[in-house]
Amino acid sequence: MTLARVTRSHGRAAVLARLQATSERRRLGNLKIMARDERSVTPQSEDFSAWYNDVVFRADLVDRGPVRGSMVIKPYGYRIWELLQADLDGRIKATGHQNAYFPLLIPQSYMEREAEHVEGFAPELFTVTHAGGKELEEPLVIRPTSETIIGEMMAKWISSHRDLPLLLNQWANVLRWEMRPRMFLRTSEFLWQEGHTAHPTAADATAETMLALGLYQDVAVEAAAMASVPGEKTPGERFAGAERTFTIESMMRDGRALQAGTSHFMGTNFATAFGITYTSESGTAELCHTTSWGMTTRMIGALVMTHGDDKGLVLPPALAPYQVVVVPIGRGEQAAAVSSAAAVLAATLQRAGIRTHVDDRPQLSPGFKFNDWEMRGVPIRLELGPRELAAGTALLSRRLSYRQPDAAKEAIPLERAPDLLAAELAAFQAMLAQRAADFRDDHTVAANSWPEFAAGVAVGWVLALHCGEQACEDEIKTETTATARCIPLAGEPEQGPCIRCGKASAYGKRVIFARAY
Amino acid sequence: MTLARVTRSHGRAAVLARLQATSERRRLGNLKIMARDERSVTPQSEDFSAWYNDVVFRADLVDRGPVRGSMVIKPYGYRIWELLQADLDGRIKATGHQNAYFPLLIPQSYMEREAEHVEGFAPELFTVTHAGGKELEEPLVIRPTSETIIGEMMAKWISSHRDLPLLLNQWANVLRWEMRPRMFLRTSEFLWQEGHTAHPTAADATAETMLALGLYQDVAVEAAAMASVPGEKTPGERFAGAERTFTIESMMRDGRALQAGTSHFMGTNFATAFGITYTSESGTAELCHTTSWGMTTRMIGALVMTHGDDKGLVLPPALAPYQVVVVPIGRGEQAAAVSSAAAVLAATLQRAGIRTHVDDRPQLSPGFKFNDWEMRGVPIRLELGPRELAAGTALLSRRLSYRQPDAAKEAIPLERAPDLLAAELAAFQAMLAQRAADFRDDHTVAANSWPEFAAGVAVGWVLALHCGEQACEDEIKTETTATARCIPLAGEPEQGPCIRCGKASAYGKRVIFARAY
Repeated sequence: MTLARVTRSHGRAAVLARLQATSERRRLGNLKIMARDERSVTPQSEDFSAWYNDVVFRADLVDRGPVRGSMVIKPYGYRIWELLQADLDGRIKATGHQNAYFPLLIPQSYMEREAEHVEGFAPELFTVTHAGGKELEEPLVIRPTSETIIGEMMAKWISSHRDLPLLLNQWANVLRWEMRPRMFLRTSEFLWQEGHTAHPTAADATAETMLALGLYQDVAVEAAAMASVPGEKTPGERFAGAERTFTIESMMRDGRALQAGTSHFMGTNFATAFGITYTSESGTAELCHTTSWGMTTRMIGALVMTHGDDKGLVLPPALAPYQVVVVPIGRGEQAAAVSSAAAVLAATLQRAGIRTHVDDRPQLSPGFKFNDWEMRGVPIRLELGPRELAAGTALLSRRLSYRQPDAAKEAIPLERAPDLLAAELAAFQAMLAQRAADFRDDHTVAANSWPEFAAGVAVGWVLALHCGEQACEDEIKTETTATARCIPLAGEPEQGPCIRCGKASAYGKRVIFARAY
Repeated sequence: MTLARVTRSHGRAAVLARLQATSERRRLGNLKIMARDERSVTPQSEDFSAWYNDVVFRADLVDRGPVRGSMVIKPYGYRIWELLQADLDGRIKATGHQNAYFPLLIPQSYMEREAEHVEGFAPELFTVTHAGGKELEEPLVIRPTSETIIGEMMAKWISSHRDLPLLLNQWANVLRWEMRPRMFLRTSEFLWQEGHTAHPTAADATAETMLALGLYQDVAVEAAAMASVPGEKTPGERFAGAERTFTIESMMRDGRALQAGTSHFMGTNFATAFGITYTSESGTAELCHTTSWGMTTRMIGALVMTHGDDKGLVLPPALAPYQVVVVPIGRGEQAAAVSSAAAVLAATLQRAGIRTHVDDRPQLSPGFKFNDWEMRGVPIRLELGPRELAAGTALLSRRLSYRQPDAAKEAIPLERAPDLLAAELAAFQAMLAQRAADFRDDHTVAANSWPEFAAGVAVGWVLALHCGEQACEDEIKTETTATARCIPLAGEPEQGPCIRCGKASAYGKRVIFARAY
């Protein structure tokens, strides 16, 4: 430990010595930060990817972690996750699932019991070889997903048909090695929930798979105001070890697709690998049928890319840390009166269940604050100055309007604020959902020729007939970077020649192809 | 992956072959489980440790994980954690802290920057050496606690005095290698929250340390109905890297102490190691003063050992997954009427905010159910049979009574059930808290001689004067296995000879000594 001690005393000396020297630099640094904050983000039309990075950092959602591929979810971003979590957790519990917690570390041998599972996940595993200063007898992997360890416990817990269905869910962190990290979308560690269930029959497990998919679709549409399409993955896009994988695919504002939640029917694959069996009513031993399903913190990235614009983030009220921000405006003698009126207004709104924040930072101008809350995507801003106070009103601005004249600022009577704001927030939520659905529909085409297909996936989604062969899917990807996103559940029956190779189509309906995150 | 494929097909063949053979064994196994379930747990008086193990497994709180030292928190145990979490999280947020999420994996070099910190934690670290199939350039450790990685980020985020205080909290899993695992109390992985804050002055950071300690004391007393004593740790029991460590020590029913939450004042130790500095109003650069504080899933073990008895668990209503269980009793034609009345009663209680469960398992006898819910510690049981139904009543039984005649079963009118039950639950919560406080007081003595001391720590806590020297504390531990638990905040000023060595006492007041978990 001598080295560490030296480091520490060296560190202390160095830090103390640097302190005075950095003072001046810090002050200049602060000025620079202010200047940068007043600069707008890269326009979406110029470089969507740069826009995304600008927004997630500038809106204070996230920071890069010190280890490559890792992220720190900052309070503003984490609060969005908490709100999403509360919404989804309520739906999971209401459908009879119970939360539990399983170990982070999994014996490496467990991963190997299901052949496709280990094939899929081996390249992404983090391996623990030492603990307590000694080499472990068997290496442990950090969970990339928990089918294996939960399967092992299910085998122990289930003995009779009376133990079924077993409906479990876990909120946890998982790790998958990531070469090309992207905040929220692809990081080595992320947060998620993973549902794991066991059933007596394939029909029951299939029904559960669809139930979970329905929960995700509801969260995506009702809470996140996203335009999601539920469907089934083609065989090449299935979860490693699943018989069938379902997904909700959502359209981002650059026309790409993002997989926002997946639900897997495992058949008896994991039951066989882990010995998950039960005694039927007639006394015979049977294999269970299992499912798993997950939704992750990438939903935060999806929110950003579904609703954001060149001013920054736009948040649906259901998931907005602050639904309303009150900015008091007043100098000198008026400041105190305005400030206390703002506090009263905020307390009134909070009592009505509206998440309200007063921005009373004294050192910042109203204009700076307006930009700041626009960047952070707060749905409604209320300004309160001496003139409004005298009139018993506040000036309301919406972060975004759509398909209606932008009324700019609107005076609302303070005494009716809770009701008016509740209605405004509901309208804002509905407006975002409609806007996302319209955008998706405007950027989705049914293609019947290869040029149509290629043009379509360059800007959005394409509905096309496909032969269902992997080699053909791979060719399409090579040429256009687009992949088969899903076979939409709601698709009309249709058959014909494959859009690429002309062979007879598979699946009995059109497939959505798109470039994807 | 060929090996895995072989394993899989082998597994499938083996499992299918075993299925028929195991059917008969399974049925016999079920009978054995029933028989075991009807056996009572090891009495506390016979072997407290065996009693604890019997209860945590039989009450379905937890299971052993496949890796040595790991645990699986089962739904019933996890629900207790969720209730505790919601209570504590509300208090943490109400005092201005914000949740965030930091990476699980920490560069090994970070741990080494604070000398005492690495000395304390090095023997407990899990090390990741490989990821994505390659050896990492620098090994990563799985967080045993997050001062280092959060310190690194704080240094980046804090520049001006306006950024202070920075009040963060994280809900997360942490891993510490554990040689002698004990469910909830000592496992290699556990869940916790860790608060991390930065302040301009030592006084502010000290106030924060005490504020967090107060939150823990409130949760322990108000939610967990525990008898906790807030105090300061002696130097030998401080957190690795802290200037001062505070604790709430709680008495278990075997007279041992359990540290139920700790709060640390770090001074400038971590600020120096990570360069957490700020520019003051006058423009000078200064070091921050930091704190950290944590409460963990060991609280579930503490609940078990504070309130449990020879019938099993006893849960305070504030943290009980089910506060009331309704057992419908009726056969044949009466069954349907009783069962639907039970459902109506449960719905009425749930609407009144009372967590209620109807045990309508058809294959089990009322007697079995009564034992089962007693084992699981449900505060109030309601029986509903044809006779009660006709009279418009239910039979109420309390899981435990204390200092009042045990009224056994009591008929309550159904129409007043919500109000009566709410009052019963409040009384039950208060009764448990009073019982725990009385038990603690009855098992705490002030010792003024070594024989008194030795006799006292054999059965409970001892208040004694101590010289404050580590060698003397070590001697006491060797001879009695008791350690210095804390210097109680509320202790009266007192000085005199050390209970062990006779030298002049330190700390200006008595110290609590006890055997501890």
